[in-house]
Amino acid sequence: MSVVVIEGGVAGEGKADPSTPLRFAQDDKSIVPTYEGDFVLDGHLLLECGRTLADPTLHYAVYGRLNAARDNAVLVGHALSGSALVAGWWPELFVEGGLIDLKTDCVICVNLLGSCYGSTGPGSVDPETGEVYGATFPLISIRDNVRAQARLLDSLGIATIPLAIGGSIGAMQALEWAILFPERVKRAAIIAVAPLNAMGLALNHLQRRAIQGDPHWMEGNYLRQPRAGLALARQIAMLSYKSPQLFTERFGRNPNRNGEDPWALEVDGGGLSGGRFDVAGFLDYQGERFLDRFDANAYLAILRTMDTWDPVRGYRSAAEAFGRIQAQLTFIGISSDGLFPPQEVRALAEEVKAAGVRAEYREMVTDHGHDAFLAEQTELIRLLQ
Amino acid sequence: MSVVVIEGGVAGEGKADPSTPLRFAQDDKSIVPTYEGDFVLDGHLLLECGRTLADPTLHYAVYGRLNAARDNAVLVGHALSGSALVAGWWPELFVEGGLIDLKTDCVICVNLLGSCYGSTGPGSVDPETGEVYGATFPLISIRDNVRAQARLLDSLGIATIPLAIGGSIGAMQALEWAILFPERVKRAAIIAVAPLNAMGLALNHLQRRAIQGDPHWMEGNYLRQPRAGLALARQIAMLSYKSPQLFTERFGRNPNRNGEDPWALEVDGGGLSGGRFDVAGFLDYQGERFLDRFDANAYLAILRTMDTWDPVRGYRSAAEAFGRIQAQLTFIGISSDGLFPPQEVRALAEEVKAAGVRAEYREMVTDHGHDAFLAEQTELIRLLQ
Repeated sequence: MSVVVIEGGVAGEGKADPSTPLRFAQDDKSIVPTYEGDFVLDGHLLLECGRTLADPTLHYAVYGRLNAARDNAVLVGHALSGSALVAGWWPELFVEGGLIDLKTDCVICVNLLGSCYGSTGPGSVDPETGEVYGATFPLISIRDNVRAQARLLDSLGIATIPLAIGGSIGAMQALEWAILFPERVKRAAIIAVAPLNAMGLALNHLQRRAIQGDPHWMEGNYLRQPRAGLALARQIAMLSYKSPQLFTERFGRNPNRNGEDPWALEVDGGGLSGGRFDVAGFLDYQGERFLDRFDANAYLAILRTMDTWDPVRGYRSAAEAFGRIQAQLTFIGISSDGLFPPQEVRALAEEVKAAGVRAEYREMVTDHGHDAFLAEQTELIRLLQ
Repeated sequence: MSVVVIEGGVAGEGKADPSTPLRFAQDDKSIVPTYEGDFVLDGHLLLECGRTLADPTLHYAVYGRLNAARDNAVLVGHALSGSALVAGWWPELFVEGGLIDLKTDCVICVNLLGSCYGSTGPGSVDPETGEVYGATFPLISIRDNVRAQARLLDSLGIATIPLAIGGSIGAMQALEWAILFPERVKRAAIIAVAPLNAMGLALNHLQRRAIQGDPHWMEGNYLRQPRAGLALARQIAMLSYKSPQLFTERFGRNPNRNGEDPWALEVDGGGLSGGRFDVAGFLDYQGERFLDRFDANAYLAILRTMDTWDPVRGYRSAAEAFGRIQAQLTFIGISSDGLFPPQEVRALAEEVKAAGVRAEYREMVTDHGHDAFLAEQTELIRLLQ
C-alpha cells in the first residue's frame, strides 16, 4: 500500500473538549490524517427522541486538504465500532487506483455520537449535570448524527460534497445525508444496509441482553467494563458479520488450533465443557480483544441508533422520503450478508428508484458475509468505480 | 385430534431410582403413555470419552403395546429440550392417518442421558460419591445414548424395530441406531440433521458462554438456576430454530405488541435501552418460560452431546461407517433450516447412499426454519409416508 501523507490542512473550528478523552485505542494510523480534532456544537442539539444534547462534541478526522471551492470533501460514515480514522479501517480506498486520491480529494469522517472514540457518548460528562451520562445518555438517531455532521460541514464552509459513502451504519448515514440535505450531496454509495429486519433486531436485542445481564454493568453506572457481557455481545455480533460458508471454510469442525480436544473432559467445567472447537477459540479471541477497544455503554447506545433507523419514518410515504433525493445513488449488496440480506438492499434500491431517483444496485459476490465491505475492499472498490 | 388411550401395557423392567426425581415440568399429556418409568442399567456404562457412568437411569415412555413378536416398537429420539413424552411434543404423528397407529404400533421414547426429565443427568446423584454430579457429569455421546437405549430394548425383549425416527438430536440417535445395530433397524427417518457445522458449533459455544458467564452458575454447583444465562442461551438458540423469513413475517419491525415504543426513553436503562420491538418481546418471553422447564447444567451436557456427534468418527471412512447400515433410510431436509442447512442433510444422505445404503432425500419446503419438524408436523408426515 502506498502511504500518502499530506502536510498542513484545514484548521478545526470547534473548540477542544477535555470531557471526551480518547479512552480507547483506535485503529492503525499508517495513513495520517491531515487533521484530527473536536468540533463542539454550541447550544443544544434537539434530538428526534425529544431530548436535547448540550454542547455535543463531534470528533472527526480529515485526510487530504479542502480545495479553494471547498467542494472536494468525501464524507465517510463509519460502522458500529468504527472510528473517525477511516484510513485505519478502510485503507484500500486510499491506495493508488482506489476510490480516493488525496492529491485532489479531501476525506472527512465523523465519529458517531454515542461512540467512545471522541464524540459525545455515554462516557462523556453531561455539561448540565457535571456527571458522566452513563445510562442517562439519550437515544441518538441516524438523523441526529447527520444533522450534527451538517453543522460541522457548515463550520468548515463546505456547501456540497461529491460523495457520501459508508457501509452498514455508515450507509445509513450516507442515505440520510442524501434525503435530509438533497442539494448538498452529489453522489452516495450505500453499502450493505437496509432498515434492520426482525432477525437483525433480534440479534441486537440479545447483544443488549448480554451486556445488561452482566452484573458488572450496574445499570449502566459501571466503573469497570462489564467484560463478560460485552465480549458475549461482540461474539453474537460476529455470527452475523461473517457467513456460515466462511466459518465452514475457515474452521469446519476442527479442534481449536492451540491443540484443545473437544472430546476432553474437565477443562474449566468438568464434563459440561471441554476442549473447544476452532470456531469457539476464534470467537473467544474476538470477544476478548474487543474489550480493550470499545465501551459497553457506547455499544448499547449505537445498537439503538441502528435499531431505530428507518429512512421513511416521519414521511407520508417512501415516495415522499426518497423523492427528496437529488444525488446519484449506488447501492451495494453482499451476496452472503446475513445481517442485511442482499435482497433487502436491492429492494431498498428499487424503492428509491421508484421515487424517481437515479439509483443502481450492484452486488458483491463473496462468501465472507456482512463484513466483506471491510474484508474485501479491492472488490468493493471495483464495484464502485 | 383424536386422543388414543391404551390400557394396560408393558411392565418396566428397571427399578425405580429416587435419585432422579422429575424436577421440571414436562409436556402436555393429552395422549397418555401406556407406561412411563425408569430403567436402571446395572453396573457401569462405559462412555466414549473414557469415563463410566455408574448405574445410570433411562427414563422412558411407552405408547400403545408391544405385540406378541415384540417387533412393533417404533423408537423415537427427542431433541435438545425434549422429553420421553413424545405424544406431548409430536402429537400429530399419533393422529388418525398420521405416522403412528397405536392400535397396531407401539412407540418408545427414551429421555437422553444428561437431560433433566428423568434420565441420569448433571442434577442426579452420583452413586459413587453420594453427591450431585453438577459439573463433574461426564461427556455423553450420541453413541453412549444409543448403546444404553439398546440395553433397555434388550430388557424389553425387543430384538428389532420397524422404525427409528427423530429430528435434530433425535435424528442423530436414529442414524447411530442404524449404524451401531444394523440388524435391529428396518427403517430410519433422519430429519433435519447433519454433523453440526462451524456456525452451529459457534451458536452452541455462545450458549455455553451465556450460561457459564452467569455468576449464578457457580462453576456448575448452583443451588438456584443461573436464570439470566440460561434464558439468554435459549434466546440465542431460538435464532437458529426459526428463520429470518419467519421472523420478518411474524414480527417485522413492529413495536412489541404490549404497546412498548422502541423510540421511548428511560425504560429500564435510560436512553441505552427503551421500548422493545416485537421480536425482542417474543425472545424475552421464550427465554423466561424456558427457565421453569429446563436445567442449565442439563442444557450444557446436551450441547456437548450435540457438538461431538460425527457418525464417521472412529471408522476409517464414511464408506466403512455407513456401509454397516441395513435399514432403509429417509432423510428429510428443511428448506429454511439455518442450523442444519438442507444442502448438508442432502450431502449426508448422498454419502450414505454412496456406501450402498437404500437412502433417499426429501425436502420440506417451508419458511419456518429448523423447528419446522415440530411446527409443521402434517407436512412432515406427508413427506414420510
